[in-house]
Amino acid sequence: MSANQPIAIIGAGSIGLAWSIVFARAKFPVQLCDPSAEQRDHAKAAINERLQRLSHYGLLDEAPDALLARVTLCDSEEKAVANARHVQENAPEDLALKKDLMARLDALADPQAAIASSTSTIPASQWAVNLPGKHRCLNVHPGNPPYLLPVVELIPAPFTEHHITDAVRDLMIAVGQKPVLVAKEVEGFVFNRLQGAVLREAYCLVRDGVATVEDIDTVMREGLGLRWSFMGPFETVDLNTNGGIERHAARLGPAYRRMGNERGQDDPWTPDLVAKVVAQRRARMPLEKWAECGLWRDEMLMKLKAMRARDSPV
Amino acid sequence: MSANQPIAIIGAGSIGLAWSIVFARAKFPVQLCDPSAEQRDHAKAAINERLQRLSHYGLLDEAPDALLARVTLCDSEEKAVANARHVQENAPEDLALKKDLMARLDALADPQAAIASSTSTIPASQWAVNLPGKHRCLNVHPGNPPYLLPVVELIPAPFTEHHITDAVRDLMIAVGQKPVLVAKEVEGFVFNRLQGAVLREAYCLVRDGVATVEDIDTVMREGLGLRWSFMGPFETVDLNTNGGIERHAARLGPAYRRMGNERGQDDPWTPDLVAKVVAQRRARMPLEKWAECGLWRDEMLMKLKAMRARDSPV
Repeated sequence: MSANQPIAIIGAGSIGLAWSIVFARAKFPVQLCDPSAEQRDHAKAAINERLQRLSHYGLLDEAPDALLARVTLCDSEEKAVANARHVQENAPEDLALKKDLMARLDALADPQAAIASSTSTIPASQWAVNLPGKHRCLNVHPGNPPYLLPVVELIPAPFTEHHITDAVRDLMIAVGQKPVLVAKEVEGFVFNRLQGAVLREAYCLVRDGVATVEDIDTVMREGLGLRWSFMGPFETVDLNTNGGIERHAARLGPAYRRMGNERGQDDPWTPDLVAKVVAQRRARMPLEKWAECGLWRDEMLMKLKAMRARDSPV
Repeated sequence: MSANQPIAIIGAGSIGLAWSIVFARAKFPVQLCDPSAEQRDHAKAAINERLQRLSHYGLLDEAPDALLARVTLCDSEEKAVANARHVQENAPEDLALKKDLMARLDALADPQAAIASSTSTIPASQWAVNLPGKHRCLNVHPGNPPYLLPVVELIPAPFTEHHITDAVRDLMIAVGQKPVLVAKEVEGFVFNRLQGAVLREAYCLVRDGVATVEDIDTVMREGLGLRWSFMGPFETVDLNTNGGIERHAARLGPAYRRMGNERGQDDPWTPDLVAKVVAQRRARMPLEKWAECGLWRDEMLMKLKAMRARDSPV
């Protein structure tokens, strides 16, 4: 991979602008296009505004101008994709529009380039199915904004070639993102499935008069969310239960199953499923490290708390 | 409320020790008891160890010794509850044991004192139902450890008197916690309902081969969890959607409903329910402040990112 080869960003809305920052920050030339002259005219100023704020928080290695100089505004898709190794599309969530746009990009782009969509709702198997270059198409769904939320979901279609997905994963790592593989094109992918699970339960709790909107938000931001900002949900319960996640599942699985049943869900944590989860956690953290990792967790919480103490008006 | 009136902590396991720190930090005398001489002998050293770490991170206003001096180890429940304004029980999750223990505490404690259990699984209407002082009993379920996770769920039984719940809420605010009211004794309260919703979805995604355990953890810790460490789930979508949570519900409600349907859940966000949520959010944040609050959100994310950049080995 050469950092001299440009990245094409299609669409200068908020996600396109944010992607431009991600790639420019990693020293890639960025070729950004938008069909709207107004959006194009606005783009550099909008990127600069974000860069100034990042710089203020010490989050850039270089002056904002140096990054900004790597972004070229293009008045055509052809110019944007010229020589690009990766095409990242950020058009509105409209299948017909995306199909047309992607057909043009597929025809214009270097045959080696990956063609990725930032869409959170339209699987690549829908927008790419009729393209000659469908093998190099996939969804690459960022957190918003991607220069602050590192997670990126890679969702290949069944026809996406593995080497393309691998190359995109390597590119994402190279630019400082945290790619995850979503192996099936389920609605919501993983990010919005987890978010949806919380929102659905939260709405039920308000509906049933169990808690207010603000109190539910407080439970997250003064509790669960503090942990989840540096540990995933599996890691959290693995570290919170003496004996690890196997013991957690045995002790609390039945209670969580009952809570699910109340919402119509019955997906028990069978011995096979628990064994699968346990095996993956033990490969990441042997149980002998449990106490040590618990100290790390508490340290992370203390650092978060210290940061808040510094930053809040109290 | 007088900060000279002691707090009784019943049980010197990890939650009892952590509560002792919360109250001692807020300058209350703490009377801590445990039936095990070994636990009692160990308690001061265990508290001190935690205090030293808090002090290291600048999270104590005083020297650890000053806090430690406020904790008195008691070899009987009678001594622990003597003159106490609040009794916080942290015994094992065993209904029969708790019923006996609470009957003794109810007989021993000052008639004005609130009697609270840290239990996450046994509602007060079960452990307190036969007590003469049941009107002053409720569950007060902390995050773990409460000196780092400020959220505290207050779950009164139907027979708990309002002035008791109010007094406990005031006490929790006075010692720096963030109390929330759980108005019905639902299993899991709010904290473990939200956690359970995520865990159930996460286990399904592993079972169905959609993502690995580690990738699901990554989606949380490099994405959703960064937001949720300072914004609740309602606040998050309210700020992430131009037009606020009303627009979010209209646009994404159907997709989240389909994802729920796949898990057997069908709890649609009806117009009435959405109106209820919207009204509560608008009372907290008028839509005119939407853009300003979005800047605040991005600033919080930048501070988190800057903290990580400082603290991680890269």
